[in-house]
Amino acid sequence: MSFPASGERFRARYRITGSEAEARRKAEDICLEQTVELPLALVPEGPIREHVIGRIEALTPIGHELYEAEISFAIETAGGELPQLLNVLFGNISIKPGIRLEQLELSATLLQRFRGPRFGQSGLRGLLGVYDRPLLMTALKPMGSSPEQLAELAYRCARSGVDIVKDDHGLANQPFATFAARVARCAEAVAKANAETGAKSFYAPSITAPATEVFQRAYLAKEAGAGGLLVCPALIGFDTMRALAEDDTLALPIISHPSFTGAFVTSPTNGISHYVLYGQLQRLAGADASIYPNVGGRFGFSVEECRSIVAGCVELLGSLAPAFPTPGGGMRMHNLAQMWELYGDAVIYLIGGGLREGGTLEEGVAEVRRQFATMVSHNAAV
Amino acid sequence: MSFPASGERFRARYRITGSEAEARRKAEDICLEQTVELPLALVPEGPIREHVIGRIEALTPIGHELYEAEISFAIETAGGELPQLLNVLFGNISIKPGIRLEQLELSATLLQRFRGPRFGQSGLRGLLGVYDRPLLMTALKPMGSSPEQLAELAYRCARSGVDIVKDDHGLANQPFATFAARVARCAEAVAKANAETGAKSFYAPSITAPATEVFQRAYLAKEAGAGGLLVCPALIGFDTMRALAEDDTLALPIISHPSFTGAFVTSPTNGISHYVLYGQLQRLAGADASIYPNVGGRFGFSVEECRSIVAGCVELLGSLAPAFPTPGGGMRMHNLAQMWELYGDAVIYLIGGGLREGGTLEEGVAEVRRQFATMVSHNAAV
Repeated sequence: MSFPASGERFRARYRITGSEAEARRKAEDICLEQTVELPLALVPEGPIREHVIGRIEALTPIGHELYEAEISFAIETAGGELPQLLNVLFGNISIKPGIRLEQLELSATLLQRFRGPRFGQSGLRGLLGVYDRPLLMTALKPMGSSPEQLAELAYRCARSGVDIVKDDHGLANQPFATFAARVARCAEAVAKANAETGAKSFYAPSITAPATEVFQRAYLAKEAGAGGLLVCPALIGFDTMRALAEDDTLALPIISHPSFTGAFVTSPTNGISHYVLYGQLQRLAGADASIYPNVGGRFGFSVEECRSIVAGCVELLGSLAPAFPTPGGGMRMHNLAQMWELYGDAVIYLIGGGLREGGTLEEGVAEVRRQFATMVSHNAAV
Repeated sequence: MSFPASGERFRARYRITGSEAEARRKAEDICLEQTVELPLALVPEGPIREHVIGRIEALTPIGHELYEAEISFAIETAGGELPQLLNVLFGNISIKPGIRLEQLELSATLLQRFRGPRFGQSGLRGLLGVYDRPLLMTALKPMGSSPEQLAELAYRCARSGVDIVKDDHGLANQPFATFAARVARCAEAVAKANAETGAKSFYAPSITAPATEVFQRAYLAKEAGAGGLLVCPALIGFDTMRALAEDDTLALPIISHPSFTGAFVTSPTNGISHYVLYGQLQRLAGADASIYPNVGGRFGFSVEECRSIVAGCVELLGSLAPAFPTPGGGMRMHNLAQMWELYGDAVIYLIGGGLREGGTLEEGVAEVRRQFATMVSHNAAV
């Protein structure tokens, strides 16, 4: 058999700290560490050296003691599988200081292995039947509430005009409100509200679950009438999210939550960029909406970081659909206009406590919907 | 139904940066963010406030602008499931700067939900029939080799006295050596070596795989005669590793690999401590051996950090068996005595390139085994 290498390569950009010599050393190290995991001298001459080892395509200074390395890998190294793709992109080198994964440029053949978001932005709008205003999402909480309490809240949210009513990501299968009991009641409550309003709001339960029960819960949710799934990929696995998204029996939109991802983005010199982590990777793993901590909220992301997430969710990535960026945290009545200036119609507005600021939940939702209408008509006028 | 709260709580220690007032604010924030995810004012009076919200048990200065907070949570918040336990311990607050998860103190009832390492240190020794010297592990590489080449290497390793022959963690299901072809040949090769030597060395293939194929590959490995499984929990999910470990049909030792974990430990003020990440968490997730980047190797862990990993692998954690700390990287002939001083008999020595330093693989393994014998007899004499 001839050596199985197509010659096709995918690329990743890394931000590397150090002098030019150090940056080059680190880039060369990425090429070896992420593939053959041997010093070059121990790599046999021939096709492995020629094809398998990563290749530095460019090394560019981008700041003081800061370089960007573009490195290409043979598509065969990833074997067409997401966990192994992540392994090649950022497996062992995640442990080495001063290397940050900035951007992916995957090749056509590799991208074809991924279905991406089943619905994406336009598909989600289609499911909800809302085309002319921003989408509104909120969360059922607090943990400790009974299924009846959560269902009552779900009803009120959907009844008053929230498009997507999701579980708080901390709701799993606790004795306060077991998954089965909660999902049945909340889905029923949202259906009741829809019947009254004529809207197509949906409920997305959280399926943080043991590995052997994730699909079971997802099917249970589907049967109970849930219209989407809330998934924490860092807790149950990015590839588990992908498998849920690609499951044709489920065929439910996937809303991704950033729980447990923070360590990847807390350092500017290590980890993974916001663009990749909350954007590109989410789409590869099938998320239709990617929740992320909003600027001005309690998590400290900058405007620039939030912009890069939006870009990662929507910029060209083969034929993969754009995901809906979904900023949450820090969304308040008084800054909604400001958020609109930043995001416009391009995101789902995830508003929690903000809905309760000025009075009842119903008043809050009405006020947000009124502001949305004003913004949209103002835009139309301009 | 009365409110389902047993009163039993588990604890976690967090390292928090800031002034005392800031540290207290952050600690209070952990209590809310990780449970009800609401400002205190919005949490209803009654059992949720009383039981569900985290509780600051202690806040202690441990350095300049550095505090340790001990926070307790009702065991019900975790619902007896590992993904949700991680969610409570470090879900959203992973995204907030200046908070690091340092140590877990799980309660009896919660710990009973976890089987932990099936074999642990003594079980692994039992499987290998080696009680009187340190264990030796090595990896099959490089990626790009054919199944025949890898099997030949596996044979030579086992034949010359390596106890555990594992796949390089970068071997998945690539066209160079598909999983099925590689595993069959390598398992056979190690069996052949065992038949000749009378030893009980085993082969542990890497099962980095899509979510829906992980168990399939694990069963295939078992049928082919593999003696263990190499798992990257950060790539396929910590709870997937736990499920593999607890599967009674498989009943194979689990060797955990740190690929993709680096972002958690690159900052002293964020992420998760080495003690938890490569120690306690590995045992909760069923790892019998926990591979980590060794001091002096190419990853830059300190002696102190390596010591803390060993402690996390072996210190009391309910009735969970100790896992075998398995330092890899930077293990060389010339520093083996130094490694012995640091680790003694308490770890598995994972040696890759070091085995080739002075000549053939066979000579390298013989030299390591000779050094082990000297160290052990020296110890016995002292």
